Amino acid sequence: VTRPTSGRASPAPKGPEIARIAVDLLGGDGAPAVVVDGALRACDADPDLRLLLVGPSEVAGEVLGALPAVDRDRVTVRPVSGAAVLGLGRWPGVRRPALATTLPAVEGPVVLLDVGASVEARPGTLARNAALGAAYAAVVNNVDKPRVGLLSIGTEPGKGDRARRAADPFLAGQQLPSGARYIGLVEGYEACLGERADVVVTDGFTGNVLLKGIEGAYTLLGGPAQTVPRAAALLGVHGTVVVCHGAAAGADLASGIALAAHLHRRSAAIEISTLLGVIHG
Amino acid sequence: VTRPTSGRASPAPKGPEIARIAVDLLGGDGAPAVVVDGALRACDADPDLRLLLVGPSEVAGEVLGALPAVDRDRVTVRPVSGAAVLGLGRWPGVRRPALATTLPAVEGPVVLLDVGASVEARPGTLARNAALGAAYAAVVNNVDKPRVGLLSIGTEPGKGDRARRAADPFLAGQQLPSGARYIGLVEGYEACLGERADVVVTDGFTGNVLLKGIEGAYTLLGGPAQTVPRAAALLGVHGTVVVCHGAAAGADLASGIALAAHLHRRSAAIEISTLLGVIHG
Repeated sequence: VTRPTSGRASPAPKGPEIARIAVDLLGGDGAPAVVVDGALRACDADPDLRLLLVGPSEVAGEVLGALPAVDRDRVTVRPVSGAAVLGLGRWPGVRRPALATTLPAVEGPVVLLDVGASVEARPGTLARNAALGAAYAAVVNNVDKPRVGLLSIGTEPGKGDRARRAADPFLAGQQLPSGARYIGLVEGYEACLGERADVVVTDGFTGNVLLKGIEGAYTLLGGPAQTVPRAAALLGVHGTVVVCHGAAAGADLASGIALAAHLHRRSAAIEISTLLGVIHG
Repeated sequence: VTRPTSGRASPAPKGPEIARIAVDLLGGDGAPAVVVDGALRACDADPDLRLLLVGPSEVAGEVLGALPAVDRDRVTVRPVSGAAVLGLGRWPGVRRPALATTLPAVEGPVVLLDVGASVEARPGTLARNAALGAAYAAVVNNVDKPRVGLLSIGTEPGKGDRARRAADPFLAGQQLPSGARYIGLVEGYEACLGERADVVVTDGFTGNVLLKGIEGAYTLLGGPAQTVPRAAALLGVHGTVVVCHGAAAGADLASGIALAAHLHRRSAAIEISTLLGVIHG
């Protein structure tokens, strides 16, 4: 996830159906053209979507002029100079957020996290990701009593590096939200198969490598690129933030915006943080 | 790689074409049936192959009786009790060996290492794997001046965890064998694409997860399972050792035996260790 694009939801002003998503015009390798393309695709797909395009005034002006008349009342442009900075604040106790994505596995959707936010493998971070992933699967993917697995290089206890060997017995004794249960160690296949787990927990380095390896395999076999998601939810901050792949195409951006709208309508950030026992000030 | 099967070559007694490979009858989840199946397939494919099946006497006796008469002079059985232990000894300076495998990427074969032998990510181990992988690509895959990349989560310098950030500048200044050159950081796609690198270097934890993730993606898309190799060469020991996937089928075992014969005929262990400046006692 390089040069990420962020889509951020603010409270809906006209009722629960409306989702207002801010989109960074300068995010990603193909900005702003790809971002505008994605924004218009997302508007086409969801009549209750309102977009706030954020970027430098010269780019914003171009976009406004190019917009079809029918979309003009649904898209607002906020001209700003400089990079958009996330000022949402983190949940208490969260030092670094996690990026969660949902893969379409053989047996059903599998949540994989972290896919790139926190790159050092620490037992405490892995345990935190297990709780985040369990709540995410329940709230966002409607999974009943999610099965949570810890990514390693074998399924027998004791397999893996030091961080995994420490996190495995800890997770076995940890209470998880949403009635989730820890099923032990899983291997790399699990992100594509979903036979034993609905949530695959790892550090941001390993998760990012795994996700891109799966995407590479799809490319090699000529599979549809969209099968691998190029948008991920940032968990651990107050608000809804979706980060898209730096090389995202218009269709990927549109999927990312749709994910942001879905998270917003589910009140995912508030629901997940409540399930994790975070106190809202 | 669980409950691995090892195939070990001893010096060829009848000329350079003959390869004599020892096969562990009890290796892998489907042993001994799958091992015997793989051994017979390997004999069919390579008339100059001689096999030494190693295992408990009751299993070995069964195998001998089941062998077709035509194969009996090519297959010897050595009845032993207890697990076969690698007594080959390691190269000086090698604390833990590395497992290297070759993936059939879009642009040509890509060597991925380590795929499971040494699971802690240390800058020194990553640098050692870069040299091993460069020599392996040149000696075993006939790659001229291999391009070596370090697996990370972005391609710009500074991307990755602490171990990658330390290894990247170190590798940029390190001399690699076989005229190989270090091309910097690569992402998970590279193992399937091979656009920028002939060798993808990582730690045994990340490499194992990546390999199994790619295999899972192939399963999801219904691709041929054989596209992902289920045999890897153990580098850093005096001798030729191939480790097969614990869930390997007969065809995988046969591929593993063929790889062992290929490594033996290339004198790969001696060539690679010589390229790395290891002194042979």
